[in-house]
Amino acid sequence: MASDLRLVLIISFVSVLVFSTSSSSLPRFPRQNRARIQLFGGDRNSYQYQTKYFSQQLDHFSFADLPKFSQRYLINSDHWSGASELGPIFLYCGNEGDIEWFATNSGFIWEIAPKFGALLVFPEHRYYGESMPYGSRDEAYKNATTLSYLTTEQALADFAVFVTDLKRNLSAEASPVVLFGGSYGGMLAAWMRLKYPHIAIGALASSAPILQFEDIVPPQTFYDIVSNDFKRESSSCFNTIKNSWDAIIAEGQKENGLQQLSKTFHFCRALNSTDDLSDWLDSAYSYLAMVDYPYPADFMMPLPGHPIKEVCRKIDGASSDASILERIYAGVSVYYNYTGKVGCFELDDDPHGLDGWNWQACTEMVMPMSSSQENSMFTAYDFNYSSYKEYCWNTFGVIPRPRWVTTELGGHDIETALKSFGSNIIFSNGLLDPWSGGSVLKNLSSTIVALVTEEGGHHLDLRPSTPEDPKWLVEQREAEIGLIQGWIRTYRLEKEAQFPLLKRSW
Amino acid sequence: MASDLRLVLIISFVSVLVFSTSSSSLPRFPRQNRARIQLFGGDRNSYQYQTKYFSQQLDHFSFADLPKFSQRYLINSDHWSGASELGPIFLYCGNEGDIEWFATNSGFIWEIAPKFGALLVFPEHRYYGESMPYGSRDEAYKNATTLSYLTTEQALADFAVFVTDLKRNLSAEASPVVLFGGSYGGMLAAWMRLKYPHIAIGALASSAPILQFEDIVPPQTFYDIVSNDFKRESSSCFNTIKNSWDAIIAEGQKENGLQQLSKTFHFCRALNSTDDLSDWLDSAYSYLAMVDYPYPADFMMPLPGHPIKEVCRKIDGASSDASILERIYAGVSVYYNYTGKVGCFELDDDPHGLDGWNWQACTEMVMPMSSSQENSMFTAYDFNYSSYKEYCWNTFGVIPRPRWVTTELGGHDIETALKSFGSNIIFSNGLLDPWSGGSVLKNLSSTIVALVTEEGGHHLDLRPSTPEDPKWLVEQREAEIGLIQGWIRTYRLEKEAQFPLLKRSW
Repeated sequence: MASDLRLVLIISFVSVLVFSTSSSSLPRFPRQNRARIQLFGGDRNSYQYQTKYFSQQLDHFSFADLPKFSQRYLINSDHWSGASELGPIFLYCGNEGDIEWFATNSGFIWEIAPKFGALLVFPEHRYYGESMPYGSRDEAYKNATTLSYLTTEQALADFAVFVTDLKRNLSAEASPVVLFGGSYGGMLAAWMRLKYPHIAIGALASSAPILQFEDIVPPQTFYDIVSNDFKRESSSCFNTIKNSWDAIIAEGQKENGLQQLSKTFHFCRALNSTDDLSDWLDSAYSYLAMVDYPYPADFMMPLPGHPIKEVCRKIDGASSDASILERIYAGVSVYYNYTGKVGCFELDDDPHGLDGWNWQACTEMVMPMSSSQENSMFTAYDFNYSSYKEYCWNTFGVIPRPRWVTTELGGHDIETALKSFGSNIIFSNGLLDPWSGGSVLKNLSSTIVALVTEEGGHHLDLRPSTPEDPKWLVEQREAEIGLIQGWIRTYRLEKEAQFPLLKRSW
Repeated sequence: MASDLRLVLIISFVSVLVFSTSSSSLPRFPRQNRARIQLFGGDRNSYQYQTKYFSQQLDHFSFADLPKFSQRYLINSDHWSGASELGPIFLYCGNEGDIEWFATNSGFIWEIAPKFGALLVFPEHRYYGESMPYGSRDEAYKNATTLSYLTTEQALADFAVFVTDLKRNLSAEASPVVLFGGSYGGMLAAWMRLKYPHIAIGALASSAPILQFEDIVPPQTFYDIVSNDFKRESSSCFNTIKNSWDAIIAEGQKENGLQQLSKTFHFCRALNSTDDLSDWLDSAYSYLAMVDYPYPADFMMPLPGHPIKEVCRKIDGASSDASILERIYAGVSVYYNYTGKVGCFELDDDPHGLDGWNWQACTEMVMPMSSSQENSMFTAYDFNYSSYKEYCWNTFGVIPRPRWVTTELGGHDIETALKSFGSNIIFSNGLLDPWSGGSVLKNLSSTIVALVTEEGGHHLDLRPSTPEDPKWLVEQREAEIGLIQGWIRTYRLEKEAQFPLLKRSW
């Protein structure tokens, strides 16, 4: 059984800052501690908002007698042109983490608010941050029964109910709502536009892998892209990494091997298994691929611009007598210790795995991930649903519904489904981002469009502008602004045609 | 309190064959017994199908540990051209009653199946007919907890899961699904096309009052249309009915008045109150408006063609010394006793009101109904939400969510919302049908269209063709066929463009 479980894999988005590999003797799950430490990579002081709470239904789709819960949201109306001007409402679809983190890492929305005269709201996703059913995180995460309402559909309904009520309270029923979101939040934005067209006029879905389900895209896609990000910098770097996994195992099997590995990689405490080290490396490579941004940034970790290039330079440029593992250490230090201030590394761990995203991955968000022998620099393995199901049952007492997401939200043959259905969705992606492979990379219609940058990373477009922004990034954001302006203009013209007396200055 | 409750009103669709008025001293609710007796107005022998069962999730939107239930469906594949030909699947969205009744009263679908080479499926709505959660109707209807999963969203998800599984089992994933439905079933069809565009390519929503919520249409609409159906035949008929309510009350207040009324109206048992009589009459008038078909039919009751004309002929044509109540009796006998075989009338009653539609009306399907002083021939009253809420709490232990339907499914400003969103929905309506006032009566876009007939009744177009069909009905059905053909043709062309090797004979 243990060998089956080795194949279980749950991958989370960068936005929760967690990752795990397959090579464990027990399934490995997101390490929340590190995520929490880094939670405010964004500069909180740059963004001013009020924090409010909304009383929310726990189950929108049944009338079971359940306690309401308090949903947190952040709001800023500094630039709102108001209800009478049909001032737009920009709603960021909070994803799997503290909403403040997403708000403060979505500078793009803040920057364009004045131009649009937009009200900004950031409702938090249920079961994350402060938006806990049953009064506390401990109670909400107690068991499968209390967790059972942590679903994507409920979260979308939360947003719908929340913004409908907000608009009513502001007498802004006619104000158009535009959705934003990155990563899982981008998926929520796209799905919400599709499911609630009467509530939002359009969505910018950044790095939203809505096709990363069942067999819609090959399960090797994610790791192939990570691997290719390294290979395109240097094939020797790629090969060194690819060969390193066996080297780690070989080293670990030696007498005092784990101790030696702990020393080589500067861990504060001795490793318990080589899997811990492999996970730690896997995590670094995968995140590096997501945040392979063209300028220095501090989203996950403080990193230089083009960090993979930097990693490979270290790996390839080590002295000629350096061992393969010494090279790897030199490379990965760019990720874990770019500032040079870390004396030794801690291996965070969350052995219970009772994290919100893990629950979601064990229920609806079943994203099969494999690693191919040919194209991947990671250890080869195949996603095994039986083991996955067994893991979920053992961990949460829940059986996944792997086909439910595509039944409820679509995905298969999306071109036919949406070619003449729906409108006003931007799927923005950077091809360096391993999640791009599960997203929409071509226009589905004249108004459901893909904005793809070859050199972009994970929802780079949502980050604040910087002086170092390359031209293609500036252009991507300009295109987004232009499309959103078009949605709002069209909406206002329609309103004007319906109610000529309302004609205003827009 | 009792006087408040007098204003509570729940109106059900013809498809459950129940109705109630406001003038009761206690709220009156649908009389299921009569509905059940009449359930097979359609000719069961004309339609051959297999009855099957599908194991269905009780709650699609949470992962609470709940028992699955068995959803009944009827299937006929006699004319299906098969998966390899992309043979279409016609799915009737079962509504609030026994699915066999709907299937056998939807002759149109059966008639066009050969032309389309279509597979026919009629999945039953949860909590109706044989599709009972918790193993039996008694258990399913036990209390608010067991009833809590009787919601529209769950029913739509049932259809989505069911047909996705069916297609997989038939290896017919690429076969296009077209939705059909009448009345509440038509609402389900329209909503399903909007919510599940990846599952169905289009919907024929016949007599679907998706706008009969909140204040989207005036609450007087329904009774105004009923009243107008009578007025257009004869204003003296309209006036006689309008004056009859006071006459009934006056008569009831006399000594032995109820006995006299029971005699005048040929009830088998003495009336307990004049409200019972008023309800009985209200029910007849409202149903007559729905089924004011241009030819004799036996949907609710055996009736002549243009039954309202017939009713008014009796009311107006009574001997000159006939009292107002004798005139009313003569008129309403057309509805309750057209065959002349009924010796005396039974007043059905369901004092507990624990009917599925009542539950739905007390949770999501809150349709405010008023009766205006000016245009209505019924007693004037205003919908009072507080009383309504109190009734629902007292009856079911549940609090309605009157704004939820429009939040989840839209309705407000539907023109703007759907003008450039969605496609392939036909809203067919006959303007004699009082439900037409809550439906979509004009084109929302080039592919979301309204087919309106001035002389049509409640989902008349879904009924089997007859030699007496007027030209406008024949044309309405031809238009529907043409539009559905267009949807399927476009779908196939897109498939063909994507997979040229699949080119076939379609």
